[in-house]
Amino acid sequence: MRIALLGGTGDIGEGLALRLARDTTHEVAIGSRTEQKALEAVEEYVDRLGEELSAELSAGENVEVTVDADVVVACVPPYHVSDTVESVADVVDEETVLVSPAVGISRDDDGFHYNQPPHGSVAEVVADAAPAEVPVVGAFQNLAAGALSDLEHELGFDVVVTGDDADAKATVNAIVEDLEGLRPLDGGPLANSAEVEAMTPLLINIAMENEGLHDLGVSFH
Amino acid sequence: MRIALLGGTGDIGEGLALRLARDTTHEVAIGSRTEQKALEAVEEYVDRLGEELSAELSAGENVEVTVDADVVVACVPPYHVSDTVESVADVVDEETVLVSPAVGISRDDDGFHYNQPPHGSVAEVVADAAPAEVPVVGAFQNLAAGALSDLEHELGFDVVVTGDDADAKATVNAIVEDLEGLRPLDGGPLANSAEVEAMTPLLINIAMENEGLHDLGVSFH
Repeated sequence: MRIALLGGTGDIGEGLALRLARDTTHEVAIGSRTEQKALEAVEEYVDRLGEELSAELSAGENVEVTVDADVVVACVPPYHVSDTVESVADVVDEETVLVSPAVGISRDDDGFHYNQPPHGSVAEVVADAAPAEVPVVGAFQNLAAGALSDLEHELGFDVVVTGDDADAKATVNAIVEDLEGLRPLDGGPLANSAEVEAMTPLLINIAMENEGLHDLGVSFH
Repeated sequence: MRIALLGGTGDIGEGLALRLARDTTHEVAIGSRTEQKALEAVEEYVDRLGEELSAELSAGENVEVTVDADVVVACVPPYHVSDTVESVADVVDEETVLVSPAVGISRDDDGFHYNQPPHGSVAEVVADAAPAEVPVVGAFQNLAAGALSDLEHELGFDVVVTGDDADAKATVNAIVEDLEGLRPLDGGPLANSAEVEAMTPLLINIAMENEGLHDLGVSFH
């Protein structure tokens, strides 16, 4: 399977790239706005993984890596999500699974808060920006980039997966299961994504307020 | 310590009453809109706990049980929270810790959603209805009534505690620690309560969508 990470040089992109490259044998294509940046990131990931590298890593501009990708993950900040998805709209179709891991977060004196987009959630922003036939799945929103990027960090977290297309969700579930220490849980339709995204500022608040807790994830039981 | 549960005959009130009565030696006063209903609930709780009863249970109208209570938990649905808190406003003061465990939830065809009050959160609705000098703490919002009420159910959950008064939070933390299988975590100021409350519909969605998961709680790590 070919998995493209749009903005795969950013925080969450880096973490997902490293985990996918270590724990799967997929083709993982790192996208960025410039090919140079993507190439540099891949070089760094290869270097960091050393003998643990198991996937096939490649690099390119966002559009380039999206061509022929089975799964495309929009690892960009929420205010870039629409533009980024629109920029690849011509090279995705009903066979492409578009994954939304981003969360809108605002900060004030009290802490971090969920900055809900008028669409309901970032996942629905993605769906809105994508061609209607492309299935969109919300996933990975609650994973701390710091935990993902630190390959020594044992995760043990749940990943809530939302979406309206059962096949697309099954594809994402299988990827989550491939990643060591992650368990996919069905969160229902895409319209349930806001409640998933809203948990991320909570995780940051808890990490900020409690000694010894950082890069938190969550498990449900 | 005297802990009053306003609406202590409802779902979450029942669960907290049973756990407090089993795991602590506090005075636990069950409040309801009528004394008769509260008395019947206490009778049932005493019956269910049998020899496990460790606290001192009493019953009365909501106002009556609030008098001289150190901690008052507003275990009422969100649309009754304002009225209930206003009804006891004359018998609480700066020494009373007012706890908000309620969550506004709406349901549509997709699932359950956080129904955010204009105040920001139910905890802030409580603060708005209470006299200004009474410290308000958000806690217990993410506990499934079904799990709490089933005394065989081993919890193993985190309770996020929010509030602006450190002493009031410390009082609530100590109660949480008394309850078997619960760990208090600081969620920061009361203004961070929305993110805590929003997790409850997520827990229900996950329970609805995943075989074998029900009465879910959460742990952060």
